[in-house]
Amino acid sequence: MLQEISHPTPHPVAFVGAGPGDPELLTVKALRALQTADVVIHDRLVSEDILALVGPHTRLRNAGKEGFGPSIPQSAINALIIEEARTGARVVRLKSGDPTVFGRLDEELDALHAAGIGYTIVPGLTSASAAVATLGQSLTKRGRNTAVRLVTGHDMQGYADQDWRTLARSGEVAAIYMAKRAARFIQGRLLMHGADPQTPVTIVENASRADERIVTATLATLPSALFASDVTGPALLMYGLAPRDARMTHTMPQQQEMI
Amino acid sequence: MLQEISHPTPHPVAFVGAGPGDPELLTVKALRALQTADVVIHDRLVSEDILALVGPHTRLRNAGKEGFGPSIPQSAINALIIEEARTGARVVRLKSGDPTVFGRLDEELDALHAAGIGYTIVPGLTSASAAVATLGQSLTKRGRNTAVRLVTGHDMQGYADQDWRTLARSGEVAAIYMAKRAARFIQGRLLMHGADPQTPVTIVENASRADERIVTATLATLPSALFASDVTGPALLMYGLAPRDARMTHTMPQQQEMI
Ligand SMILES: C[S@@+](CC[C@H](N)C(=O)[O-])C[C@H]1O[C@@H](n2cnc3c(N)ncnc32)[C@H](O)[C@@H]1O
Ligand SMILES: C[S@@+](CC[C@H](N)C(=O)[O-])C[C@H]1O[C@@H](n2cnc3c(N)ncnc32)[C@H](O)[C@@H]1O
Repeated sequence: MLQEISHPTPHPVAFVGAGPGDPELLTVKALRALQTADVVIHDRLVSEDILALVGPHTRLRNAGKEGFGPSIPQSAINALIIEEARTGARVVRLKSGDPTVFGRLDEELDALHAAGIGYTIVPGLTSASAAVATLGQSLTKRGRNTAVRLVTGHDMQGYADQDWRTLARSGEVAAIYMAKRAARFIQGRLLMHGADPQTPVTIVENASRADERIVTATLATLPSALFASDVTGPALLMYGLAPRDARMTHTMPQQQEMI
Repeated sequence: MLQEISHPTPHPVAFVGAGPGDPELLTVKALRALQTADVVIHDRLVSEDILALVGPHTRLRNAGKEGFGPSIPQSAINALIIEEARTGARVVRLKSGDPTVFGRLDEELDALHAAGIGYTIVPGLTSASAAVATLGQSLTKRGRNTAVRLVTGHDMQGYADQDWRTLARSGEVAAIYMAKRAARFIQGRLLMHGADPQTPVTIVENASRADERIVTATLATLPSALFASDVTGPALLMYGLAPRDARMTHTMPQQQEMI
């Protein structure tokens, strides 16, 4: 299966999930797509280790965006994908995590539909899966929660409004993406709706990467913990979850190393 | 990276996500764990194609459970893992999808903690990611939903009670696991809370496998669509999502077949 490397999809464009950053958390299919692509158009968040895996003749094109909106306009990214596909190139559009989770996939699919260009979606591991694995926790647990939410901290309008009332109930679990700047807002809303200030909240920065870091907090201490730990990389706010292992309760500078 | 196959974790037990079924949707790390394990203790839902990838000397042990509870008691599964780990074997505990999503992982972790046995969690692709990719949809979409839920149709008590009131609002999206038997209950609750009967609901059976099947419905037609299509494999109920491509609403053989 891994010896004969052929491109995994018959369509000109493959939207491929790069996973959270550890190259070993790529799917076999994603790896094959990277190794056989003519061009890989990638986001800012895709790790260097993963970009290093593309084939020897593959061109890399950066469609990097910044946190609060695209630095390259979405329309220019769409045009770039279409332009490359029209040359007959095998295009991989590489997105961090799972392309279907806060990945602005639909805008690009709509553009391809309008241009009459075929595509395939190769799903990837979303960063929340890597983050809970690091914590030694589950996203769902019998007797605690029968639903888990993947939530964004901000949307087109600014801080995203969520169903804070239900999230404030005991036992709820949510993985909050793009939550750093919204942390104080999120804290305020949840407390206003009656959430226990002692609810565990764990920040997982650079999940699955060599510089992974865990910052433990409670809803009460969240803004100060974030401030004190100076989280600068991509981070998930795991609401309702503490690390299973008590030794993890301090900031960890490296994957397994504890202080 | 793929040539020199060494076991990816230093601990005696690795909890490994098998993904939704397509062996190409295994992570590279999961594949490596399977190829180097002494014993793989797997669930009923793990596909044959994936079990075929274990190393030549790897023993397979089936810890299969049925839908409404374990056929082998959880305590016996825990004991089996511990027994194998104590022999010094490299144990892979293989769970379908992502082990942290409706995977009863915590029971097994607790047992290992109590026994003083170390473990690693290798996250996997949860079936919802494969199901939306098949539909050509995203789990989240700007202007539609800023949160997505992974929900179970039943829990220890029977049909799981969920936050139907918020789910009934327009634009909500949820991937409902283990929903087949609960479909009529889910429909009733959502309609009672004011959900639009025309809300799209798509059933994805055997997501990512050769026998994958898509059944399109609305909240109004869900029970009859399920009945008429005789869904017998593992299936996700994708609430709030219809297939993007209108051509998917016709019957096609294999991979794209619909009713
Ligand atoms: C535009 S969203 C893309 C999410 C991605 N599609 C996924 O499924 O993980 C970017 C956000 O994802 C989260 N994220 C992505 N990679 C991460 C990582 N390795 N560790 C922690 N959070 C990560 C952060 O919250 C970041 O702000
Ligand atoms: C006990 S749960 C395990 C879920 C798994 N841990 C995951 O992350 O996908 C079993 C349920 O997962 C869903 N499921 C698992 N594999 C599936 C597949 N290939 N296609 C559709 N649904 C699947 C079905 O709803 C099934 O009833």
